[in-house]
Amino acid sequence: MAVRAAVAGASGYAGGEVLRLLLAHPEVEIGALTGNSNAGQRLGGLQPHLLPLADRVLQETTADILAGHDVVFLALPHGQSAAVAEQLGPDVLVVDMGADFRLKDAADWESFYGSPHAGTWPYGLPELPGGRAALEGSRRIAVPGCYPTAVSLALFPAYAASLAENEAVIVAASGTSGAGKAAKPHLLGSEVMGSMSPYGVGGGHRHTPEMIQNLSAAAGERVSVSFTPTLAPMPRGILATCTAKAKPGVTAETVRAAYDKAFADEPFVHLLPEGQWPATASVYGSNAVQVQVALDEAAGRIIAISAIDNLTKGTAGGAVQSMNLALGLPEDTGLSTIGVAP
Amino acid sequence: MAVRAAVAGASGYAGGEVLRLLLAHPEVEIGALTGNSNAGQRLGGLQPHLLPLADRVLQETTADILAGHDVVFLALPHGQSAAVAEQLGPDVLVVDMGADFRLKDAADWESFYGSPHAGTWPYGLPELPGGRAALEGSRRIAVPGCYPTAVSLALFPAYAASLAENEAVIVAASGTSGAGKAAKPHLLGSEVMGSMSPYGVGGGHRHTPEMIQNLSAAAGERVSVSFTPTLAPMPRGILATCTAKAKPGVTAETVRAAYDKAFADEPFVHLLPEGQWPATASVYGSNAVQVQVALDEAAGRIIAISAIDNLTKGTAGGAVQSMNLALGLPEDTGLSTIGVAP
Amino acid sequence: MAVRAAVAGASGYAGGEVLRLLLAHPEVEIGALTGNSNAGQRLGGLQPHLLPLADRVLQETTADILAGHDVVFLALPHGQSAAVAEQLGPDVLVVDMGADFRLKDAADWESFYGSPHAGTWPYGLPELPGGRAALEGSRRIAVPGCYPTAVSLALFPAYAASLAENEAVIVAASGTSGAGKAAKPHLLGSEVMGSMSPYGVGGGHRHTPEMIQNLSAAAGERVSVSFTPTLAPMPRGILATCTAKAKPGVTAETVRAAYDKAFADEPFVHLLPEGQWPATASVYGSNAVQVQVALDEAAGRIIAISAIDNLTKGTAGGAVQSMNLALGLPEDTGLSTIGVAP
Amino acid sequence: MAVRAAVAGASGYAGGEVLRLLLAHPEVEIGALTGNSNAGQRLGGLQPHLLPLADRVLQETTADILAGHDVVFLALPHGQSAAVAEQLGPDVLVVDMGADFRLKDAADWESFYGSPHAGTWPYGLPELPGGRAALEGSRRIAVPGCYPTAVSLALFPAYAASLAENEAVIVAASGTSGAGKAAKPHLLGSEVMGSMSPYGVGGGHRHTPEMIQNLSAAAGERVSVSFTPTLAPMPRGILATCTAKAKPGVTAETVRAAYDKAFADEPFVHLLPEGQWPATASVYGSNAVQVQVALDEAAGRIIAISAIDNLTKGTAGGAVQSMNLALGLPEDTGLSTIGVAP
Repeated sequence: MAVRAAVAGASGYAGGEVLRLLLAHPEVEIGALTGNSNAGQRLGGLQPHLLPLADRVLQETTADILAGHDVVFLALPHGQSAAVAEQLGPDVLVVDMGADFRLKDAADWESFYGSPHAGTWPYGLPELPGGRAALEGSRRIAVPGCYPTAVSLALFPAYAASLAENEAVIVAASGTSGAGKAAKPHLLGSEVMGSMSPYGVGGGHRHTPEMIQNLSAAAGERVSVSFTPTLAPMPRGILATCTAKAKPGVTAETVRAAYDKAFADEPFVHLLPEGQWPATASVYGSNAVQVQVALDEAAGRIIAISAIDNLTKGTAGGAVQSMNLALGLPEDTGLSTIGVAP
Repeated sequence: MAVRAAVAGASGYAGGEVLRLLLAHPEVEIGALTGNSNAGQRLGGLQPHLLPLADRVLQETTADILAGHDVVFLALPHGQSAAVAEQLGPDVLVVDMGADFRLKDAADWESFYGSPHAGTWPYGLPELPGGRAALEGSRRIAVPGCYPTAVSLALFPAYAASLAENEAVIVAASGTSGAGKAAKPHLLGSEVMGSMSPYGVGGGHRHTPEMIQNLSAAAGERVSVSFTPTLAPMPRGILATCTAKAKPGVTAETVRAAYDKAFADEPFVHLLPEGQWPATASVYGSNAVQVQVALDEAAGRIIAISAIDNLTKGTAGGAVQSMNLALGLPEDTGLSTIGVAP
Repeated sequence: MAVRAAVAGASGYAGGEVLRLLLAHPEVEIGALTGNSNAGQRLGGLQPHLLPLADRVLQETTADILAGHDVVFLALPHGQSAAVAEQLGPDVLVVDMGADFRLKDAADWESFYGSPHAGTWPYGLPELPGGRAALEGSRRIAVPGCYPTAVSLALFPAYAASLAENEAVIVAASGTSGAGKAAKPHLLGSEVMGSMSPYGVGGGHRHTPEMIQNLSAAAGERVSVSFTPTLAPMPRGILATCTAKAKPGVTAETVRAAYDKAFADEPFVHLLPEGQWPATASVYGSNAVQVQVALDEAAGRIIAISAIDNLTKGTAGGAVQSMNLALGLPEDTGLSTIGVAP
Repeated sequence: MAVRAAVAGASGYAGGEVLRLLLAHPEVEIGALTGNSNAGQRLGGLQPHLLPLADRVLQETTADILAGHDVVFLALPHGQSAAVAEQLGPDVLVVDMGADFRLKDAADWESFYGSPHAGTWPYGLPELPGGRAALEGSRRIAVPGCYPTAVSLALFPAYAASLAENEAVIVAASGTSGAGKAAKPHLLGSEVMGSMSPYGVGGGHRHTPEMIQNLSAAAGERVSVSFTPTLAPMPRGILATCTAKAKPGVTAETVRAAYDKAFADEPFVHLLPEGQWPATASVYGSNAVQVQVALDEAAGRIIAISAIDNLTKGTAGGAVQSMNLALGLPEDTGLSTIGVAP
């Protein structure tokens, strides 16, 4: 079997990461690479870390160029995926690393993104309850947002086991690659090194409704989410600190048991031994998720913390994992749980 | 007037920072500098950024050497301040930058620090209600912990104005200097660069009871605190994200008004204009505190965020500010609200 | 005396740094602040670390607005200073932090900058032989480039004492603020954190002829310079490693003696004790220069290394130091040799 | 074929990196892992990024435990490898990632390391002239130092083609992992972030004679080396800026041709297209070497610059590459030229 894959938006961070992973994927052959503003340029100048692709030249993002592949990864600005996907036909696996098809609720979409809802595709987070079944055989995949990946994996076991009240409070720190490769003054190295700063405070971040969607599904009731993202002085990584009030009678043991059970057979989610806490450096470049959980008895809250690489498990790794499921390949084909550290 | 000041523990980060500030203080003359394991060494090798003191030599930390100064700053390991302070006499202003005299509740102290409670000194956070009165004329000052400084300043206005329910959820990121200068493997540059990681999760961090003490005093009732500290890849700075459920009827306007009022005349606390959020880089090396607050109406929570320099306002700057009040000097003497950026 | 100072280009890094220093200068009152693309904006949003100036609003850069000040600091793109300076009159002290008036040789200027030579102003590096005399009473100052400041201070004593052959090999690492605040993709935090990279390799960097000018003047003969700048993952600082073949008979003692003599009375240049080496962190935010020198007897070369803050001594601090000399103020007024560390 | 490999010193940075690579090596099975001070501990606590080995427990470093493997990687402190190797027998492939067997000249060894010379093993830098032949079938390999790897690859083509005078001037910046995992104050994150600093200045660094050995062999005559290492604020990476005076008549074209020829068939060394320069971020976690070269005609010098990952190509990747050659495997088995970026 040789799966032929195209990547639209190959000059950005998500596109570069999916190429990094596909280069190591034994069943995939890399086909067309496109990127509008950089069409005509060598990839070697744009993604100098992808040495085997250095002499490949970017093409325009058009349906003609993307056609004829088994899989097309879309790393496009919000709102552009639907038009491309429509032209690709139902037999092509289209993996959208943008936000367009993540939300089920059209009103949520319109409220947070300010444009008409394009629809909903199977959601690429296999670890969620029912997650794998939704992906098997699918030809459309909506890759989750990076924050929702980290947050949902940290908290869904507490909600699935009815251990937590339905108001979650989440603070997450992300590396700067989460903000993309477009040059903006506040993302300059001079500005971000040595600085922690919040953004999208007060409920406005677009990943909030996606977290609510996932946690509510696990809980079987509406979960409200207070989410504060912060920008951390590192290129990659998300550390999500997720807390919720424990329901009456919940003990450290019941919490631990729920998490043990939720992740027992997961190839990528690693519940750390008690006493050890996640660190983003440990999952640098890896598709692994480190999770730890504690019960603060004095405050009556469950504290679940996860660390992921925002570009790998948080974007391109999650995309490849979901692709594997959709194509009937072993879920971990071409993916690693080994980070690059220190 | 010439205030003669000694610093015990001058080779560490807190000691170095208080020296940096005292060098710029127009009323202070720097006297004895001590440091046990480094006694006999030139300060130029230990604190190479303090060029004017490069040729000063550290002495042993003894009462004899510290005697004869108007002010003695103690930057000692926990548990060592009481013995030194006792020998210094009641007329010497003793400013303890350690934890020994911060907590009022002996049981809290013993539970979190595992040793007998040494007592309680006037608390060096002038911005708290009644804070200045407690310090004026005092000859003993307990400098607050760095996290409690950031957290208390962010949240006390909400509690003082009865806007928030009495359960606070706090996640804070600190630069590595907060962990001190003792060489430990997990604090190596190789480990911390590129990594965010939590520690003391689940209520165990020693600064938790201090936050509870401050917020409960502002609220007039017991406030519970869920506190998660994280280590960020930067040398200095604390970003504290503090949330609490809003009481019924609270609006964005009432929140804003309470914060405006709380900080209207504060020389060091700057409530940012709406739409601008704190960044630790903006207070690098400065005694300023940046605060911003929002009401997340969907989640029903107040989100108050502060940024400080953990070594300046969070330790040595707070110490000098309190010293000024105790000695009857203008509160901002020798202190700056100008950060070093970018 | 109250010196009234205007800053043209107040929203950039050089402009922000000169404001940081002027705020601490006891003889200066800050007047007009200008910035073309940001005219009309609050400084609080552009330079959030300069709290005392937060409510100041940027004006257009015009001669009318800059007129009526005793000193005008120009932090403008190359080629724009001459036109502004001409309109300011000969009695106004104009301090140009750009390159326009640094080079004496018009052919060098045209070759490296590609535009007609505007002229030559007194050069703002007082520590060079004859440097102070050129500045006293002057009403025009060309502030040196950041690299030439670091390199010239490290190497001129070797050339002034005829210890080194006339071919210098220099490799310097700079923090990213040296590249300015304009948003470019290769300066994004995601790109620079974790990366060292060279640029302008092979003799093309515009600061090369300025180094040659300074070292040749010290040597009394033409000195050739091989200069390689590198970009380091830090916001501030330059570490310049400067080597030259030792002349026959030169010993470690003669080298040391020459450097001791060169810097004996310098307020800002600190020749470190033997065995201690410069670090950019030690001069963070300070106008100090750390220098150390060694003779590698096996390789027959003198190795002189300096550390400066590129924005302070390398730009705005050098500008204020030169302003002090021009105005007859004590040279170190408002300037500090204390760094912010760690 | 299943090569069974043991790693002595598995808790350090070199040991961890060789494990990271061996986990991805299709022909290797990981056997005993040892580490003296950490014997008895789970690897999951010591190397949390190596998830598949989390439950492995470190053993003592003894010949008994290391016996019975096909390959033994030694990541031990200097001076300890000989005693271990002697007990392992001549048929076991022993790959020493320490310095003990790198130098041919016993006097150089004794002068730089201060202990008796243990001998010389085949040198693990296949790209050097004759490098592969020395490794094929060998059962002892001395892995080069990280700096000598970067420097030798950058400069040997110039010497092998007789383009450069025999005095090289080299300045290199290394990430902090090069200094190892032992906790020392100057390696704390608080100290290294934001700082560039030199060390071992003036010819004292132990890698100097190794560079001289390699470049002299390429030149066919003694090459002197002035080498200045600097510590950069990043975990990984070496950027080596290497210059030498060009011989008369050398042109940019002859330089380019020599480098093109030297690296034409190299699987890991990538001579960048003209105009593009190396960056350590591009080889993060990769075994690739980026090289670029220029002729500075004004200064008359060749400037060759290389970027490597000090732990991968500079240590463990070079070790695995050499192991492949010794065992008759394809040289690039299990090794990647794809970096993790941004």
